Amino acid sequence: MRKPHAHDEQLLRGGPLVEREEVFSSRARGMKRSVIRELLKLTANPEVISFAGGLPAPETFPVDEVREAVTKVLDEEPHKALQYGPTEGDGRLRRDLAEVMERDGTPADPERILVTTASQQGLDLVGKIFFDPGDTCIVGLPSYLGALQAFKNYEGVPVGVPLDDHGMIPEELVKTLDRLEGEGRRPKFIYLVPDFQNPAGVTIPVERRRKIISIAEERDYLLIEDTPYRQLRYTGKHEPTFQSLAPERVLSLYTFSKILLPGFRLGWAYGPEWVINKMVMSKQAVDLCTPPFTQAITHRVLATGALWKGIEYNIKLYGGRRELMLDLLDRHLSDVDGVKWTRPEGGLFLWLTLPEGMNSDDIFKDAIDHNVAYVPGSAFYPNAEDHQGMRLNFSYASEEQIGEGVKRLSDLIHDLV
Amino acid sequence: MRKPHAHDEQLLRGGPLVEREEVFSSRARGMKRSVIRELLKLTANPEVISFAGGLPAPETFPVDEVREAVTKVLDEEPHKALQYGPTEGDGRLRRDLAEVMERDGTPADPERILVTTASQQGLDLVGKIFFDPGDTCIVGLPSYLGALQAFKNYEGVPVGVPLDDHGMIPEELVKTLDRLEGEGRRPKFIYLVPDFQNPAGVTIPVERRRKIISIAEERDYLLIEDTPYRQLRYTGKHEPTFQSLAPERVLSLYTFSKILLPGFRLGWAYGPEWVINKMVMSKQAVDLCTPPFTQAITHRVLATGALWKGIEYNIKLYGGRRELMLDLLDRHLSDVDGVKWTRPEGGLFLWLTLPEGMNSDDIFKDAIDHNVAYVPGSAFYPNAEDHQGMRLNFSYASEEQIGEGVKRLSDLIHDLV
Repeated sequence: MRKPHAHDEQLLRGGPLVEREEVFSSRARGMKRSVIRELLKLTANPEVISFAGGLPAPETFPVDEVREAVTKVLDEEPHKALQYGPTEGDGRLRRDLAEVMERDGTPADPERILVTTASQQGLDLVGKIFFDPGDTCIVGLPSYLGALQAFKNYEGVPVGVPLDDHGMIPEELVKTLDRLEGEGRRPKFIYLVPDFQNPAGVTIPVERRRKIISIAEERDYLLIEDTPYRQLRYTGKHEPTFQSLAPERVLSLYTFSKILLPGFRLGWAYGPEWVINKMVMSKQAVDLCTPPFTQAITHRVLATGALWKGIEYNIKLYGGRRELMLDLLDRHLSDVDGVKWTRPEGGLFLWLTLPEGMNSDDIFKDAIDHNVAYVPGSAFYPNAEDHQGMRLNFSYASEEQIGEGVKRLSDLIHDLV
Repeated sequence: MRKPHAHDEQLLRGGPLVEREEVFSSRARGMKRSVIRELLKLTANPEVISFAGGLPAPETFPVDEVREAVTKVLDEEPHKALQYGPTEGDGRLRRDLAEVMERDGTPADPERILVTTASQQGLDLVGKIFFDPGDTCIVGLPSYLGALQAFKNYEGVPVGVPLDDHGMIPEELVKTLDRLEGEGRRPKFIYLVPDFQNPAGVTIPVERRRKIISIAEERDYLLIEDTPYRQLRYTGKHEPTFQSLAPERVLSLYTFSKILLPGFRLGWAYGPEWVINKMVMSKQAVDLCTPPFTQAITHRVLATGALWKGIEYNIKLYGGRRELMLDLLDRHLSDVDGVKWTRPEGGLFLWLTLPEGMNSDDIFKDAIDHNVAYVPGSAFYPNAEDHQGMRLNFSYASEEQIGEGVKRLSDLIHDLV
């Protein structure tokens, strides 16, 4: 005979199903809807000019090249492209991706590539293979929201290290590692967005890259380099990837979402065999494989040179929008004491810091009332501890919208000072 | 000052990176490469006739309809289809999916649909939201390999309940629940593949469905109904879905992989709001959204009626292959004492049981030497405890190959008896 249960009575009364948080895993009980996602709902009003999202401009999508590629795929290999494929990804595409990396100065072996359902899946797999509940990792302060969410969803504990205008500060990294190691909480890895960091827009110069690598080598840490748009540089000189500087110690995550198009959800992970192998095993049970259809199309699109042509176009378009936003901020806000912003050399975002005492969470509703939107800085902190910063996107809004949106934001800040 | 670490010495010697299992999460240390996947490598030899995979026949893919759909998508909505999309999925497609369910006798609300990167992602999300390490769930003996793998990858513990020719045996279910509840190990859910079960090929009749539901209701369990090919019925009458019988208690997982094409990796989950909500939250950090491009294409393909036309074609093709395989087994193996096989009314697989004392793992290499392949039954048991069964697929091999392959397998069995 089965023993009676605490909730049997409720059930025998024909009560509702176990509709309670307790039936979920501990990780799921902690899950929250993405802040950005909820904010984006508020910005759905067409009157609102939104600097909140991270969308690429749709006019940059290579529609014609995709059309031609699909035709070839369906004419020449329909049965392969519409069938299941290998978990690691299409072999031809993996060779293409290695070439993309090599053109960017990073020697690459196709065998070390895992094609992912965009780089968000790379982050999810990293969380899955590294975190037991309570395990720590190092992230920037601020850091990419999607990474924080992916890590937390495996009950990982991201520990923040402050950034300055040149990215993660090595001395602060050492201090944080000392503290964590001292507490017996050795981090699983150090997570970096080295180029035009999301959300801060800052880039780590080569000397600092070397410094961070030597810290990682000395203490035997894996580095994770998340680099979704390092090809989108508008000014200054390219820095070498962490991958090229320390291939045995770096897992790199790439995506086509910002440099080609996001609608295929296609990215890749590159790194030491022992990490990639475990990610492959994990991916088998996650989705078997990334869609072979979009992999085959992308292989054909890459063969046309559309990626690099598109990147040139993106650089012109986004570079112009960035310059416009910086000019407007200079014009409208340089008279306000304590307001400052980063001057990213590439990417999609800049980071604006409000004057002491002004709170980007609190004034978000006011901003919406002024028909302009941003993402409050707290979203990018592991414990939501920042309230002065905000992330502004300059890739999606048109020049006209940027002009009007910056004006609205400036008016609001002036009103509040 | 940082305290010295056990492995510091190794590192200071410039030794290799933390290239050890211990750096991984406990779940990742337990991950193994899929058995099927490794087996498929052995079957890559074109001489081998493989009944091992679960691939649909490529001649069933609606290539022309896909071509037309892509043209429309790229002409009419390129900027939407190539952009990011909502995590829940394309609203139009969700309405289509509700219609697919309704046509199948299951009333459905589009708001309760989450589009997934095929049903494997559905299983992964289920694992993620329900399992803390050691948590149990009920599965069939045997059970779908990909589900076992997905659940184990979250350190869930699938506990098997025997099947007979009519699926999971209710009396055995009650016994197992009694035992687990008695041990304080209340399962998180009961996982079922009610139609043409993978791997056994058996179907649960409506009376038994009702019985299982009443057990679940009495004890307040969630049921998971994984139903990848219930539309592929070759004989007998359709049974109602668990979803239609108990909508508040059933999470259903669907996929297009077997009824349309697998190369889009497109499926959906349908269930009570409290479960779907948590899956949506979880999916946000997993891949943000399933590719909007393939969702838009599928929406257009569905509008042409290609799904139901294709299902009719599949039923003819696979139904014929099933009949052929059953006839050949009857002809070649009914004289061998103790060999038996299931007679599935639909789906892609049947289950063959070897005579007492013969081991499907052990003779696998012999089978490969005879140029024929199957999946050993142990792959479908949570603790690999079966060694007499094997899964045979009848959807992928041609009639000619089925003829020759069954002959080879029969010869082997005869030789070994």
